[in-house]
Amino acid sequence: MTTPGDRAAGMASFFAPGSIAVAGVSSDPEKMGSIIFANLLENRQRGVLGSSVYAINPTHGSVMGQRAYASVGSLPEVPELLVIAVPGPQALGVIESAAKAGVKAAIVVTSGYAEAGRADAEARMAEISAESGMRILGPNTIGVVDMASGVDTLFLRPTKTLPDGTQVASLLKPLRGGIAIVSQSGHLGQALIEELTAGGVGIRALVGTGNQADVSAEDVMEYFADDPETKVIVLYLEGVRDGRKFLSAARRASRSKPVVVFKAGKTPGGARAALTHTASLVGNYDVYSAAFRQAGVVEAASFQELADFAMALLMLPKPAGGRLAVVTNAGGVGTIAIDEAQEAGLRTDPLGKGVADRIRSEFKGSGLVYNAALGNPVDLTASVSTEELVRVVEEVVSSDGYDLGVVLPTHQTPGIDPDVAIRLIPAIRGTGKPVCVCVVGRSELASRIHLEFMKAGIPSFPTPERAVRALAAALKYAQMQKERTSLALAAAPKRNARGTDVPFTREELASLLASHGVGEPHSMVIKTQADLMGLKKWRFPVACKLLSPDLPHKADVGGVVLGVRSPEEAGASLARFQSLARKRKVRFGGMLVQEMVEDALELIVGCTRDPTFGPVVAVGLGGTYTELVRGLSLAVAPVTPAWAKSMISGGSLGALLKGYRGGPRASTAQLAKTVSKFSQILLEHPEIQEIEVNPLMARGREMISIDARAARSA
Amino acid sequence: MTTPGDRAAGMASFFAPGSIAVAGVSSDPEKMGSIIFANLLENRQRGVLGSSVYAINPTHGSVMGQRAYASVGSLPEVPELLVIAVPGPQALGVIESAAKAGVKAAIVVTSGYAEAGRADAEARMAEISAESGMRILGPNTIGVVDMASGVDTLFLRPTKTLPDGTQVASLLKPLRGGIAIVSQSGHLGQALIEELTAGGVGIRALVGTGNQADVSAEDVMEYFADDPETKVIVLYLEGVRDGRKFLSAARRASRSKPVVVFKAGKTPGGARAALTHTASLVGNYDVYSAAFRQAGVVEAASFQELADFAMALLMLPKPAGGRLAVVTNAGGVGTIAIDEAQEAGLRTDPLGKGVADRIRSEFKGSGLVYNAALGNPVDLTASVSTEELVRVVEEVVSSDGYDLGVVLPTHQTPGIDPDVAIRLIPAIRGTGKPVCVCVVGRSELASRIHLEFMKAGIPSFPTPERAVRALAAALKYAQMQKERTSLALAAAPKRNARGTDVPFTREELASLLASHGVGEPHSMVIKTQADLMGLKKWRFPVACKLLSPDLPHKADVGGVVLGVRSPEEAGASLARFQSLARKRKVRFGGMLVQEMVEDALELIVGCTRDPTFGPVVAVGLGGTYTELVRGLSLAVAPVTPAWAKSMISGGSLGALLKGYRGGPRASTAQLAKTVSKFSQILLEHPEIQEIEVNPLMARGREMISIDARAARSA
Repeated sequence: MTTPGDRAAGMASFFAPGSIAVAGVSSDPEKMGSIIFANLLENRQRGVLGSSVYAINPTHGSVMGQRAYASVGSLPEVPELLVIAVPGPQALGVIESAAKAGVKAAIVVTSGYAEAGRADAEARMAEISAESGMRILGPNTIGVVDMASGVDTLFLRPTKTLPDGTQVASLLKPLRGGIAIVSQSGHLGQALIEELTAGGVGIRALVGTGNQADVSAEDVMEYFADDPETKVIVLYLEGVRDGRKFLSAARRASRSKPVVVFKAGKTPGGARAALTHTASLVGNYDVYSAAFRQAGVVEAASFQELADFAMALLMLPKPAGGRLAVVTNAGGVGTIAIDEAQEAGLRTDPLGKGVADRIRSEFKGSGLVYNAALGNPVDLTASVSTEELVRVVEEVVSSDGYDLGVVLPTHQTPGIDPDVAIRLIPAIRGTGKPVCVCVVGRSELASRIHLEFMKAGIPSFPTPERAVRALAAALKYAQMQKERTSLALAAAPKRNARGTDVPFTREELASLLASHGVGEPHSMVIKTQADLMGLKKWRFPVACKLLSPDLPHKADVGGVVLGVRSPEEAGASLARFQSLARKRKVRFGGMLVQEMVEDALELIVGCTRDPTFGPVVAVGLGGTYTELVRGLSLAVAPVTPAWAKSMISGGSLGALLKGYRGGPRASTAQLAKTVSKFSQILLEHPEIQEIEVNPLMARGREMISIDARAARSA
Repeated sequence: MTTPGDRAAGMASFFAPGSIAVAGVSSDPEKMGSIIFANLLENRQRGVLGSSVYAINPTHGSVMGQRAYASVGSLPEVPELLVIAVPGPQALGVIESAAKAGVKAAIVVTSGYAEAGRADAEARMAEISAESGMRILGPNTIGVVDMASGVDTLFLRPTKTLPDGTQVASLLKPLRGGIAIVSQSGHLGQALIEELTAGGVGIRALVGTGNQADVSAEDVMEYFADDPETKVIVLYLEGVRDGRKFLSAARRASRSKPVVVFKAGKTPGGARAALTHTASLVGNYDVYSAAFRQAGVVEAASFQELADFAMALLMLPKPAGGRLAVVTNAGGVGTIAIDEAQEAGLRTDPLGKGVADRIRSEFKGSGLVYNAALGNPVDLTASVSTEELVRVVEEVVSSDGYDLGVVLPTHQTPGIDPDVAIRLIPAIRGTGKPVCVCVVGRSELASRIHLEFMKAGIPSFPTPERAVRALAAALKYAQMQKERTSLALAAAPKRNARGTDVPFTREELASLLASHGVGEPHSMVIKTQADLMGLKKWRFPVACKLLSPDLPHKADVGGVVLGVRSPEEAGASLARFQSLARKRKVRFGGMLVQEMVEDALELIVGCTRDPTFGPVVAVGLGGTYTELVRGLSLAVAPVTPAWAKSMISGGSLGALLKGYRGGPRASTAQLAKTVSKFSQILLEHPEIQEIEVNPLMARGREMISIDARAARSA
């Protein structure tokens, strides 16, 4: 067995191996193994790839004009990296012999495993890797493209031949640059490359992680976190195996460079079993999204945004704040940009009077002053000249009132010269601020202007919405960097299946909650009419609840009576509960009498075990609206009080805590402390599958559980 | 003065005039007037334009080698259409003399009016138009491009000259087709043309409505509604002047052909920008969005969607339902498509067993069966061949289980031939169902495949999200066509400014509400301690409210006591209110005692006057959460009971009405009737500016006002 440190170090063999062999090179040049071998050979011959390259074919002594070896064992040296593109049934044997031979890393291109219902072979690959120390990427992966070393295992043909015999480019090859792509879909990895290449943006590497039998997206991310040539990490994720490992790897990576993620598989077709109340409120995707925030990772909402954000985070200087200036010579795009900015939470303050006056005086008597609207957007209208546009961009974007700029230079109007980009670039650079441009149109000139901006490192987009969102992403990353709090991620806790139905007793729960910051209202258990004497000095109204180990959902069957006004009324409830228990044939454990907590906010707080991330904590509005409003705030547990505060400060909950419209108020700081303490429960108690307090009454600094439930781990 | 019929008929002069003159043709070929004249002349010479064309220049006898006339009056004939591109200060004079001369239609390209703070000149244009019958488009407009008649007033140069002397295309010229574009931004109109042209899609016409001094987007939409060559109407709107006229024009147009709209100026900042841009009156965006639904118009959420939806609605057959099949040979894009489909409300049922079995037996023993995941998406993986892909698309999409298809044929894999589109097209057409494809990539082959699909009338998009949303838009249009209810839009009511502070009395409100379907709880007004005797037989608890004409917000100052349990407690409240009135120096109008309505849903219903659309009605959840949840459902008033039902049936409100989690329930049909009746109030009562019942307690068929307020019109 190897140490974690060895295993991390082993990753290097994928990227810069001394030697590479390809298993599955065939006489048919269209087979995946042949394409990969041809790529590597070409890179070797062009001097891009320094590694020696070998073909393995069990039956032919030569393929594609090159010597072929019958097996890994018959190669002149043990290859550091082995690419496996043999037919499905043979792959495992090749992996086993490679591990025995001392191969350091294997890329298993072969598919037909878990994705086709064959998971056991993957478990075996994980075992082989753990035993031998050989790292395995895949199976079902597109492999690795490393622009520095020349490793390229993509089995895609760069050109295809049309029926009439002409060759057309069927993909764009990557340029060398700073973006590292980690993708659980090989095709989308290539699609990202093409999107970047089309904009003249280069990549550091592409890694397809495939089915992740051994090497996971987390492992690759860790590698790029430490790689100085990597400036931005881009992740296409469908799911991670170990949520906590992902969270800590992403958190470490995002400390030194932007990480952008797009999560697909948000709405899994198979219905997830609803556990108890809290769990059913929370989809697995919501936990991912919460974990991304905790990791300081920027989440893209679409595949297009993933590419857009990567380019923006690569190119833009760090925003100092969120005040956006929009400068345009066409009103419509300016209006759209302002809409999108407000939607994205950016400020769109009007142009300062000083700046507007300077512009008016500089261009006194011109058509610009006659026509322009010097607000935000600054709309210079269709009659403006290139020179005027450039000057106004300088004045407006560099002014103290703004941190960010969007420039929308419509090139179709007569006054705008075709070299508008070349003339705007120094003006935009001169501001020193993050600026995106938007070039709308499909003409040759539009594409020329777009590429001129991109080449100059100014992100350019074809719609105003995308330009604004890219800026907002840059701001988000800067804000997350500022707000990093310590994140006490305990070791991954035991994962548990569905809980059993044996409920916790009221006393067990009360003591558990008490030790985690949640109190109980003044309470008493009454079993007989004689016990009612104990209520004499109580303040009414009170709540009466039927206690029975067999009735976890007592409210649904009439086992809760609120607003009981006297000991006599309580007596009536007692009689009713006793008869109810008889009728339902459940054990009667007495009647719980609790002082009613009034003038308090009704909240909900719960912890559950997510199958990917383990314990998560949720807090939000309680009562009827919990499910309707879907306003639960989530985090991977445990959370610090500072993080808990950020969870409860926004939105409806934040407004209610401050005493919304004269309603009850509660201490944000105290609730944050309570949530933080409560978020420890599942880490300390592996026997609990999930726990929920609903409602949690919050009043000032009091946090009181009116009802709580917990389920045992299986 | 002319009749509305005359005025509508007058619109034709913009599109197919017998003669056109351009005022403002200059010796400088770069001036707008010169570019327009050159365009028209070229179209005339090419035989595209049948109209005679004249140049007007007050000082030169000839311009651009053509004879120029000094004024409208000196032309050899009165032109049917006059294009005005003279400098700002001269435009009004030209318009006046044109109207006198009998010109039928004028396009005022000249800018610098309301958008630059000069609104009075526009008011004068409206007057001239009303008096003379001459229709005026603009000012500040890009004018008209009519692909049938050859009218083209765009002042944009199709090519520009680079510093090195080479010419580049600076815009794409439109193709002739079925999409009519109505745009309040000339630039975005041109951008739409380029987006469509790049996909090989043609337009019927483009009309920029500019500042809408006379001709509005509504007028143009009405024209295209009756135009047989127009298949889809696309609107870029910043704001409309007369919301009701827009609503009825859009409703009429959408009955016969799809109308797609993108509304900019959604946010306060964006609205301000739009105001300066086209000087349009921008109303509350939520009201616009409600009106779009009432009009049966498909709303696009972004500029990109506007183009996407237009193409989809032009090309796709009508969907029979919302069950989507996704077929792909790359897992990632398939997963994204399923996510987006569920987000968009489409059904993504798994592939039927029968179809899966047929595929397995047809391809028995092949790599396809070994690797493919026959679910939804149907993922054929990277090893599939073109032929297999085509067959599976046929089988899956044409199967009974699906109404819609998204096909994602990844062309980069070795097994996919470059003529994949040509081979998929008949298969897709053969299904007879609406199918969008997604071609991801930036290579020459990607663009070739994309265009092959587009040319065949199969909408193709570069990301899975856009393909799915386009299908969802087609479904939305089909559903809206099915669900059209009668819409009793009364004549536009008087518009009122903000109301005065003289409140309505309780009695006035109660009788008004009673006549509009809203009752009152059992109530009594008590002025003295002696009156308390009247409460003897009441059911307690009751609510006590201080009545004072000077205290509209009585709850905020302690003027409401809930849960009063006896006549004695009521007496205490009375004394308290009397002293409160004295202290606050407000008139004491007695104490209103009302039976408390328990076990009811707390709702809110209100009517207000929107500056653009006039009376609107809103209904939603009441109580504390009204503002937090922001779940109000809106419509332009009045609404039929059927429409009211559609307003309250969805979301949280719909769930609550049915008795959510054992809570109180109320009749959806009765609430719909009440909302419909209530929605009449502002139409019948011009003296009311707005009225709100909050809370409206709904219990079964009872609809009871606990508190109501109304403001008088100024």
